[in-house]
Parts: sequence; structure tokens; C-alpha cells
Amino acid sequence: MHAFRSHTCADLTAENVGQTIRLSGWVHRVRDHGGILFIDLRDHYGMTQVLCDPDSAAFAQMEKVRAEYCIRIDGEVKARAPELVNPKLPTGEIEVFVRELEVLGAADELPLMVFGEQEYPEETRLKYRFLDLRREAMQDNMKLRADVVMSMRKRMWDKGFREYQTPIITASSPEGARDFLVPSRLHPGKFYALPQAPQQFKQLMMVAGFDKYFQIAPCFRDEDPRADRSPTDFYQLDMEMSFVTQQDVFDTIQPVLQGVFEEFGGGRKVDTDWQQISFADSALWYGTDKPDLRNPIKMQVVSEHFRDSGFAIFAKLLEQEGTEIRAIPAPKGGSRKFCDRMNKFAQEQGLPGMGYIFWRDQGEGMEAAGPLAKNIGPERTEAIRQQLGLGVGDAAFFLGGKPKAFEGVAGRARTVIGEELGLTDHNRFAFAWIVDFPMYEADDESGAIDFSHNPFSMPQGGMAALEGDPLEARGYQYDLACNGYELLSGAIRNHKPEIMFKAFELAGYGEDEVRKRFGGMVNAFKYGAPPHGGCAAGIDRIVMLLADTANIREVIMFPMNQRAEDLMMNAPSEPTNEQLRELRLRVLPPES
Amino acid sequence: MHAFRSHTCADLTAENVGQTIRLSGWVHRVRDHGGILFIDLRDHYGMTQVLCDPDSAAFAQMEKVRAEYCIRIDGEVKARAPELVNPKLPTGEIEVFVRELEVLGAADELPLMVFGEQEYPEETRLKYRFLDLRREAMQDNMKLRADVVMSMRKRMWDKGFREYQTPIITASSPEGARDFLVPSRLHPGKFYALPQAPQQFKQLMMVAGFDKYFQIAPCFRDEDPRADRSPTDFYQLDMEMSFVTQQDVFDTIQPVLQGVFEEFGGGRKVDTDWQQISFADSALWYGTDKPDLRNPIKMQVVSEHFRDSGFAIFAKLLEQEGTEIRAIPAPKGGSRKFCDRMNKFAQEQGLPGMGYIFWRDQGEGMEAAGPLAKNIGPERTEAIRQQLGLGVGDAAFFLGGKPKAFEGVAGRARTVIGEELGLTDHNRFAFAWIVDFPMYEADDESGAIDFSHNPFSMPQGGMAALEGDPLEARGYQYDLACNGYELLSGAIRNHKPEIMFKAFELAGYGEDEVRKRFGGMVNAFKYGAPPHGGCAAGIDRIVMLLADTANIREVIMFPMNQRAEDLMMNAPSEPTNEQLRELRLRVLPPES
Repeated sequence: MHAFRSHTCADLTAENVGQTIRLSGWVHRVRDHGGILFIDLRDHYGMTQVLCDPDSAAFAQMEKVRAEYCIRIDGEVKARAPELVNPKLPTGEIEVFVRELEVLGAADELPLMVFGEQEYPEETRLKYRFLDLRREAMQDNMKLRADVVMSMRKRMWDKGFREYQTPIITASSPEGARDFLVPSRLHPGKFYALPQAPQQFKQLMMVAGFDKYFQIAPCFRDEDPRADRSPTDFYQLDMEMSFVTQQDVFDTIQPVLQGVFEEFGGGRKVDTDWQQISFADSALWYGTDKPDLRNPIKMQVVSEHFRDSGFAIFAKLLEQEGTEIRAIPAPKGGSRKFCDRMNKFAQEQGLPGMGYIFWRDQGEGMEAAGPLAKNIGPERTEAIRQQLGLGVGDAAFFLGGKPKAFEGVAGRARTVIGEELGLTDHNRFAFAWIVDFPMYEADDESGAIDFSHNPFSMPQGGMAALEGDPLEARGYQYDLACNGYELLSGAIRNHKPEIMFKAFELAGYGEDEVRKRFGGMVNAFKYGAPPHGGCAAGIDRIVMLLADTANIREVIMFPMNQRAEDLMMNAPSEPTNEQLRELRLRVLPPES
Repeated sequence: MHAFRSHTCADLTAENVGQTIRLSGWVHRVRDHGGILFIDLRDHYGMTQVLCDPDSAAFAQMEKVRAEYCIRIDGEVKARAPELVNPKLPTGEIEVFVRELEVLGAADELPLMVFGEQEYPEETRLKYRFLDLRREAMQDNMKLRADVVMSMRKRMWDKGFREYQTPIITASSPEGARDFLVPSRLHPGKFYALPQAPQQFKQLMMVAGFDKYFQIAPCFRDEDPRADRSPTDFYQLDMEMSFVTQQDVFDTIQPVLQGVFEEFGGGRKVDTDWQQISFADSALWYGTDKPDLRNPIKMQVVSEHFRDSGFAIFAKLLEQEGTEIRAIPAPKGGSRKFCDRMNKFAQEQGLPGMGYIFWRDQGEGMEAAGPLAKNIGPERTEAIRQQLGLGVGDAAFFLGGKPKAFEGVAGRARTVIGEELGLTDHNRFAFAWIVDFPMYEADDESGAIDFSHNPFSMPQGGMAALEGDPLEARGYQYDLACNGYELLSGAIRNHKPEIMFKAFELAGYGEDEVRKRFGGMVNAFKYGAPPHGGCAAGIDRIVMLLADTANIREVIMFPMNQRAEDLMMNAPSEPTNEQLRELRLRVLPPES
């Protein structure tokens, strides 16, 4: 017989009754029933009930084992009495009478219980991650993550992509965040950087003719901590293709991601119609470029109904250039209590408030209630109702000003309204491509033009687009939104050196600066660069959605805490003097 | 029609004749045949001949394109005249008459030709890697690497392993080489390290109950440059299993690697019988723990034949303790010229020389020639011949002393003899497990005991083995040798804290030191650690063997040069003052 196991703890069924078997695993729970000891023996695959009575030679040993001991047992498989069969357990038809027991690894008193669902502070869980990971939910999350990544790879291979690895110790990459640096020992005073993304390398591969690349790529950004992101490294499904249009990228990646959500979504509905929504429309309709389309609410511009109206605040606002009034329709939100609560929400978010109208039936037909309705009169109120397609029992909220100033709050209000009114279908994954991102944005104060997103995107219309008003230029750049998150980002790249230099010039970067920062890529574009584009999807985020958790540390095997520390491994830690000497570095005292 | 291509450059055959098609790719070569321009148009998939005569509207454009321009062409597929069909090219039955041509990316004068097989200095190739990679051999190597890694993954999944990712920004890992450090911005003065291997993490996963782990794992060692290794990062197929013996690991990984070699070996023979050879036998028989078994030569101890013999040097040597005489049989090496050359080789390698005997037929039956034979006389000579199983036309070489002092040279001599005599079968992959590694070795001068290999291996015999002479203790530790390279290394781990502390104590490390250096893992072993073991196989090395190259940079997409620099991306480079300030670091001036 094998030294440690003839079966796993998930294997034994009624078919094995009578056999002498060997199992290894962890003591999940020990129970004493009238002098007979029962152990739920657990391994990676399942659980088997093993027992021992005082007649067994193993009894004395078994009395000593405690929770989370790792043990091996030899014993005989017996059928459970019919009334004791556990149909919920694959091994629930049998139990094993222990004849011999060996402690493979003893366990000290536990700082964290594996059995049960007790909650522990995150610091405890991370410090004793090896115990935390034994818990069923964590085992499931880690398996899910591994299976999602496997599925992504298989799907990409099936589409003719190969996975090529790009350097991890390399030069600074221009993704806009802060680099992690790695001091060079062989070149004292110089530093490598860990890649924020393989952006330049994947573009270089396209220039090198590899046509279809993907990678489950580790990415590194030295960012300040936030609950839903890892403070050090994260993974992307990174891909790039040559000789493609934006639509080709969509047609390639949609089946991959949709397939992953269908495979691992646990029966939740996966939308197959992925609309393309322009960045501008998304801001207008949803108040964000990451709309949650499970929420059916779509905002509308209703400025005309308030222009020169009796509601002086809005009428006055609209006299300023660039202002708008927008409405958030709230079907079934037609109660004063709800409307007041939402108004308060807007105030908490820093706005003066949200005006509202709601429609009720007072027995004498429909009535529009709320101060706003009174101010603008019945005709305008009715026109608004008709535009928004609302009726009795519904409400609408109104925000006015320069859109940039209230869009964010409008978006959040839309989310809360959708949640509170039960309009948002949580049992669903809803996707949309956000397209037509502006190439540039102007700084509010200085008016200076800078890239609004990725500087490497091809402007729609090519060079001509850069010769007009830069703020009007749109890029072949896109995001994928799912349930209110940005799952993916990508672009058709700017592969023409002259257009690239022009694009950077508009943002205030001279040719020298571009060559200095992105020399590797820019230089390559002089030697027959193909049109190309691609995207990168956030794997941690996708697994979080599938696992239905908002904490990224639930889907990472060994995460850092929110202070970017690993308390289990003691990282970061003090270097030795020898290490610093070899690197020719000195640590300065803290700034006072 | 698609914006860039209706077909790839490998697609078109006689079946497409008459169709109007669109291709995109690179100008591999332009030829002018009597006023008609021919272009070999190349993409990732293949090559298509396209042509244009002066009547075509595209002619003027086509006259302007040069090698490595990236272009799109529209044209008609025509059959080639029978005598012009190129059977070596999948598209060799057809050619395309160009009607329209668009330059997608122009090319400056090339620092490196893609067409042809011209050799360039490595610095040029690395600086213009995007061009170098367009060459057929490099495309093939990169595809091979991607396909090998894909195959490994599929094979591991098929065996029930999941791939789990381990941290890349983490604590120092105890693999014995130098760490790359990453300064922490949030914790000034503290540093992370990049993992030399995921050793501790994979063991922690076993403690966490994951049972079967693998990872195509990036590993980082700040090592001094060498031709056959990457100076920064490299990849391993890393795996670990719980509840296993050494033989289980062998039985699991052999089919994976054997399968990969069979799949990608290009018809070279792949040995299926992987012998287990003890570390001691390997040193004796092959003079190395990485034997090349394609070479049939096996050394033997022949001390007895020289003891008290007329060959005073060896006879005298054997009076000292710990000395031996070993023979390298050299079938078909029986000529004085060859024997003298090998003797000279040994001298070049720093030994006084290698004695030899060779057997020839002088017409009067077999004769043993060489000074050694004369010195020890015919009886001893004949006994040696019989022990080594040699005959007329063969030779044997002899080395004496303390084995450690000559084993290395003996091994290299064996290699040269095998090569020169044509005994080594280059058309073959020959594998052997090297087992029973000693746990410890004594320093030659100080006599101090230290780990000879991996400190985390379980000693054979457990605690008892550590209570005798440490130099006699063997570990459950193993390597896989293939064609003279170490392809893989692994061990059954020491999962018992008390045995681990004892093992470290023998090597002079106190409990405090062990806890300080490996605290994460040692702490975990107190909480029910399972027996476990695994291995890590070098992916770069495997691909090098399959691609039949001795230069690791031929199988890495974007390698560093031998000074650990990336000249294309300019890494490493000077940090900005802002970066250093944020990290609270100062660079010291070079040591004078």
C-alpha cells in the first residue's frame, strides 16, 4: 500500500465497504460519542468520517490528536446504518474504523480555527495564512482563481494566440503610476524597474511580427493602499494583435471573457449583447465610464424644461455656458420619504441637494408632487414625465450645473436608487464597451492639455485629428465595464512615429522627452511597424466578481496587507549592511 | 473586406486562383525581373510572392518600398506557370498581382537584415531585438518556447495539478544566491526581495492543504554573468505535492518531461528508462552529478591493480588514505596519437597528466602498449583489460589521487573522449535521476560542516540519521540529468520542526537564526504540516536543449546582455532625484 494514502478523503463510497484502506489528512473535528471517537478527516478533496472505539489499538493515539493535526490512518471501510447516511457528503455512505494511526504533523494550539465560520481580524488571517487557506471558502476561491486562469489560457490558445513572457526586471514603463525600482549591483547607482504592464514589450513583439500575443502578466505598481487593489503586484490577461481594427479586438476577447463568466458564474445570467457606449454617452446616461448596466436607470438631459422656468435656481444656472440639467428617473421611487432620503444622499456627497418630482394618485388622477413641480408648473412637469416615460408611483431627481461637477454624484445616486428600489439585478453580469475616449483633457485651472488616458492610442482620424482642437480628438481606446467595474482597458495603438510625436507635442512633450521615456518603442516604429492593438483585463477583479467578494485579498493566495506588508514572511525588512554596500546605497534617516 | 487582410501570407493555394484578396505583411525581399517587381511578402505565418508590372496603378508605390516596410496589398491570385511552382512554399502554387498598395509602416535603413542568414554581433541583435526577432530561426525559437510551456501546463493540469501564483514582491528567499532587493517607499529603509524561487510559498501551500501545486514560476537571482544563464530572471516549472514519497514525484514528473521531449524533440530519440544513480556512483562513473548518458563510457575503480605495482606514482599514491585509481575506458581509442592528445588535455586541465594503456594487434596477437603497461607488467595489464571489457583497438586512461581532486577532470576527459571517438549519440535525449545526495559536506580547510545542497530536504532515516556522522547522512534529494545538464532539482522536504532545527544545528545555525531566516515556513510547520516534496525544472534549459542552442539568449524574447543590461530599453538607468527621495535612498560614489 502507498506510504500515505490508498484513497483521498473524497473517494470512498459504498463500493469500498469491506476494504482495508489508508487515508491521510487533517483532523477537521473530533467528537466523542459515548466513548467512541469520531474524526472528520479532511484533505484537499473532501472529508471522510473515521472512528475508533476503545478496543482499537489506535485508540490511545487517537485520544491525543487535536484539531488540525495532520495524520495518516489505516482502517476498514464500513457501511453506515441507513439512518446515519449523510447524503450531503460524497463519502456519506461509509465510515472508516481506524486500526492504526500515525501523526504526520502535530499542531500547536490554533490562533485561527479552520472548522466553522468564525470571523478573524485580517491581520490574524494573513499572519497565519497557511491556516486561513485551509478553510473551505478560501480553498474554493483559490481553486476558482486557478481554474479561471486555466480557462483563459485555453481560450486564448484556441484562438491562435501564443503566450510569450516579457521581462520582469526591466526599464521603467510609462503607465503613469509609480514604479518599483530594483537597484543594480553590477551598475551601482543605476536601477531597474518592475513593469507596470508589458505595454512596450507587447508592442515591440508586434513590430517583431508575432501577430498574436497574450500573457497572464504580473504587473507592478507602487500605489498607495486601497481596499480593492493589491499594493504591490496584480495580474492581467494581456493581449495584443497585429493588423486589426478596434472591432477585431472586441470580437476576439468577448468570447473569451463571456465564456469565462458563463463557465464560472455559478448560474448567474451572463449578458451576450455587449453594447458599445461612447465615453460621453456613458457619462451622461450613467454618470461614470464604468456603468453598472444591471441597473436599468438611464439619465437624460432635461435642460429645456427648466430654461426660463419658475424654478429660479435651474433657470439661472442655465444662463451660464456649459451647464445642463439632468434627470435620474426612479421608477417605483414615488414617495416623499424616499425622495427626501435621496436628496439627503446628494447633500452628503457634497452637492446642495437634488430636486425631485414624484407622481402619485390622490384618487383624482395623477398628481405631480414636490416643490420643483410647483415651481415649474404642470405643463413642464408633464413634459418631463413624458420624456422620462414615468407614471404614478415613480419619481425623478434633478441635478444641474456643469456636468463634470455633478456627474460623479449623479452616478452614485443612480446606483443607490437602483439598489434601494430593487431595480438592480444582482444575479447577472452586464457588460458594455466604453468607446471614443477623448485623447486629451484640459487642466481645470491652468487649461494645460494632457493625455486623458493612454498616450499610445491612435487618434481616430489619424494625423488630421491632431490638427484641429485637441479636446475634440477621440482615440481608438476602449474599456470594458461590467457591473460597475472596469474589467479591461485597451486601444488600437499609434504605430506611426510622426503621429506619435505630434500627439505628445500637443500634451507638451518634446521629441527628446519622448525618445528618452519611450525610446525602445519609438525607435522600433521606424522599422516597419504594423497597425496593432489589444487590451489587458484585470484578473484579480474578474475573480473577485466571480467569487462575489469586494476584498481582493480573498482571491490572492499570499496577499500583502493594506500597508504593503507580509507579516507571515516579514516583508519588507531591513537589508544587511553587506547588501547595501554591494548596491552602493545608503538609507537616509526619516524626514523630520 | 477586412481593413488589413482577407488571408494570411500562408493561406493562398491554387484553390484561391481568380480571387481578389488582401494581404498585409513585411517586404522580405524585392526583386526586379525585367521591369516587373516581385516582393516576397512575409507575415508571422508564411510568405507569399506578390508582383506588379508597370501597367498597375500600384507600380509607382511599389517602386518605393524597401526591405522590412510593412505594407498592405490588394490583388488577384493567379496560378504560377508549372515550371515556376515552388513546392517548398505552401503558397508556392500561386502569386498575387498587386492592384493597390498601402504603406502601413515605412522602414529606415536596416541595422540588421532579416532576410538571409548573416551573423551580427550580439549587441546589435539585442539593441534591435525587434528586427532580430523577425528572423525565421528566432520566430521558431519563440514559438517553440511558447509551445513547450503550453504543453507543460496541459500535462500538469491533466495530472490534477492547479497553477497557483506566488508573490513576486516578497521577502528574501533562502536559495543561497544573492537576492534582488526592492526598496519600500511606504516603509523607508526597508526592502522587499524578488524570490529566488517560490520554495517557501509552495511549502506553505502544502501546509495549507493544496495537495498539488505547480507554477511556471519566474525566479530572480542577482548572479554574476555567465553565457548559459540569464543574469536577472529565469523560469522554472515548479511543482510540489503532499503525502508523497520520492518515487511518487518521479512517477509524476517523468511523463510530463518525457512527453515534452517527445513532442518537441524533432524526432531525436527520447530515453524512456530513467535510471536512478546515486550521487556517489555518478561521481565515480561519470565524474559529475550531471552525467551525459549519451556517452556510454563508465569509469571504474582499478586501485587493486596498481597497489604495490611497478608503477611507482600510483603505488605510492595508494599508500595515502582516501586515494583511488580510476580508469576511463576508451573503446576505439587505441592509438598513441589519441592517447597522447588526451594526456595533454588532462595537463591543460591542471593535472600532471593521464596514464594510459592501449591494446593493438601487431600481427602476433594482442599487445598492451604505453609506458604504464610496461611498468605494471602483463598480468596486471591483462586484469585491467578484462575488468574494463576492452580489446584490440581500445584504450584506457588512468587518474589517481583523492577522487575530489581529479573527478572533475575525469568527467571532462570522459566527455572529450566520447566526442572524439564518436561514441556520444547526439541524436538522443538521455535522462537519469541522481539520488542520495549527501546532506552535508565538510569545508576542505576548516572542516566545518555545511549543507551540501538544499537545507530543506528530509534526511533519509529522519532524526536518527542526524544523530550519527553528519557526513554520512543522505537526503531525499534528487536532480534530473539530461545530456550533461541538470534539468531539474527537488526533494522530499523536511516538514518536522524538530528535525529541521537539528539539521540546521549541525550546519551551525541556531534556532534563532533559522526562525529569523525562514520564520514563515518554520512557524507553519507547527500547525499540522503534511509530508511533501516536489521539484523545479529549468524551462530555459529545456528549451535550449530542444532548440539545440547553447546560448540562453536564443530562447528568451527580450534577454539582458551579459552585463545585465537591456540596451534596447535602456535598463538599468539613473533614477530621478524624486524617486530616490521618495525611497529615502542615497547612491554612494564608486569605491575608489
